[in-house]
Amino acid sequence: MAEQDPAVTVADFDRAIREAIDSKTKPVGALGRLETLAAQIARVQQSLVPTASRCKLTVFAGDHGIAAAGVSAYPREVTRQMLLNFLAGGAAANVIARTLGVEFALVDAGVMGPAVEHPALVSRRIVGGTRNSVERPAMSASQCEAALRAGREIGGEGSHEAAAFGEMGIGNTSSASLVAAKLLGLPVAGLAGRGTGVDNAGLARKRHVLEAAAARTPAELGPDAALCEYGGFESVMLAGAVLGAAEAGKIVLVDGFIATVSALAAVRISPHVLGNLIFAHRSAESGHSVVLEALGADPLLDLGMRLGEGTGALLAWPLVQAAAAMLRDMASFESAGVSGRT
Amino acid sequence: MAEQDPAVTVADFDRAIREAIDSKTKPVGALGRLETLAAQIARVQQSLVPTASRCKLTVFAGDHGIAAAGVSAYPREVTRQMLLNFLAGGAAANVIARTLGVEFALVDAGVMGPAVEHPALVSRRIVGGTRNSVERPAMSASQCEAALRAGREIGGEGSHEAAAFGEMGIGNTSSASLVAAKLLGLPVAGLAGRGTGVDNAGLARKRHVLEAAAARTPAELGPDAALCEYGGFESVMLAGAVLGAAEAGKIVLVDGFIATVSALAAVRISPHVLGNLIFAHRSAESGHSVVLEALGADPLLDLGMRLGEGTGALLAWPLVQAAAAMLRDMASFESAGVSGRT
Repeated sequence: MAEQDPAVTVADFDRAIREAIDSKTKPVGALGRLETLAAQIARVQQSLVPTASRCKLTVFAGDHGIAAAGVSAYPREVTRQMLLNFLAGGAAANVIARTLGVEFALVDAGVMGPAVEHPALVSRRIVGGTRNSVERPAMSASQCEAALRAGREIGGEGSHEAAAFGEMGIGNTSSASLVAAKLLGLPVAGLAGRGTGVDNAGLARKRHVLEAAAARTPAELGPDAALCEYGGFESVMLAGAVLGAAEAGKIVLVDGFIATVSALAAVRISPHVLGNLIFAHRSAESGHSVVLEALGADPLLDLGMRLGEGTGALLAWPLVQAAAAMLRDMASFESAGVSGRT
Repeated sequence: MAEQDPAVTVADFDRAIREAIDSKTKPVGALGRLETLAAQIARVQQSLVPTASRCKLTVFAGDHGIAAAGVSAYPREVTRQMLLNFLAGGAAANVIARTLGVEFALVDAGVMGPAVEHPALVSRRIVGGTRNSVERPAMSASQCEAALRAGREIGGEGSHEAAAFGEMGIGNTSSASLVAAKLLGLPVAGLAGRGTGVDNAGLARKRHVLEAAAARTPAELGPDAALCEYGGFESVMLAGAVLGAAEAGKIVLVDGFIATVSALAAVRISPHVLGNLIFAHRSAESGHSVVLEALGADPLLDLGMRLGEGTGALLAWPLVQAAAAMLRDMASFESAGVSGRT
């Protein structure tokens, strides 16, 4: 409504949201972060009766050249095996999405080996995996552009109010650590964690590999250069999807470390998308808190999870539904005939 | 199954749960607290394929004699007005329960004034409000027993796997602070918070009133005496409902400060019920953390809420569903043909 009527300023609309929430039959502020969440949804939808009836999770999968450097606890073929597990409905993200009534889609952004043919798989393969960023840029500028464009299209599709994005790709915490380090101008070692669970020796090796990769380029890079030098096809496509979904007026549920780095890149490309982002879960992956702080974000959940796949984003969806319903459906003191404070 | 076969020890069953969770297609431990939650549900249900298909919220309402001492920011008639608001479906707990697919029931445990007649209201009125515990015991021993018994019956009913309990009653943070202080042998001032939102002067007055009430009895009391001296009909019935639900093999979702004090009383009456309790949300009400610590509990959510009504418990239900589904439905590395760690 604020968009339609230029006389209604942003401050007016924010005040109207606050008044609507404070008129509900509860002490002022008693629903805590559910109230700030409701206000954010109202701002995104420009409505005092927001809706949150449908959420869709899109998982992007891709392989990483840097995985050849031994940065993961799991072999590279696991990306492809997990793609098949997603298609069979057996992965954590499938199970949680079904449980919470969230639609599920899977995108092959660039998985190693021949293309998988499956009616449920969205094929947007750039090529079958990135190059090893220790030695050269992970992808060319045109590949990076193509991945961003594909993500933007996918993110903007559909009539669901909320979009969650997940990722799968062996080696992608390494890739995300490098992208985050370059976007923030920080040493990569402080952003590198255990990923799928490397031991102490593995973590030392991973940090050594990442430092070698980081040394190839200046300490700080813009979003396009950072994604091109160190990104993955799945994580670049995810950044594009964040842009596309936000531009389409959707709420975006931001998952863990890798998805948050993609969201940071998206915010660097288009700062205004930040208002659409709901940070869902604080990952146990050590670099996540650094990236969240850079975004001024404090996620809704902190359950010690570090899986990716959009699992953290999914678990915040019921909170979004509850927040929207609170603002839309709760009675006011006046409508319910309840006395106010003495 | 452990119950049926005496050769399967508790340690064997715990090991079987751990092995089942670790066989799922994810790095070991990567689902964090969802994994410990799944293990707890499996133990309660004695099953490696636990179910969490139905949850029911029961809200108990009652009035408090101590409210006459001016301990709340709201007038006493709000308890009755909110009872009508619940019956009309307009309160926060109604809206959130509907959104999350949770059944809702309302119990009049002892609301002031004539009994409300409504087909959706369960009437288990003891009398129309407790006495003022500053001057005398809030209820008689036989009233306390009757409230516990009614709660136990209500808690044990139904075939839902998960029970959430909420409360409504002007003055009941005061009552709960006193019950907690006596159960824990602590000064009541440290357990008294702002409740529905008293200001600084109101908080000082509330603490003064509570100290006068606490001075009537010894520093530490057993659960029956503490409930009888300082409890409310709704909070005593809630303690009984926790016992009844746990005895019926249900998972119990524990809400905020008042519900947690009732759960503490239930655990003091029957320590084995602790294993059935899932602590849902850390309330912004200051005494909650003290009571949680006494129970060794770290709630799943921390959203700055302080409303009661079971709203915090409701928001943890999707996490319970997701945890049970993870253990029941996720593929294993073997079944999905996914490679393990290198």
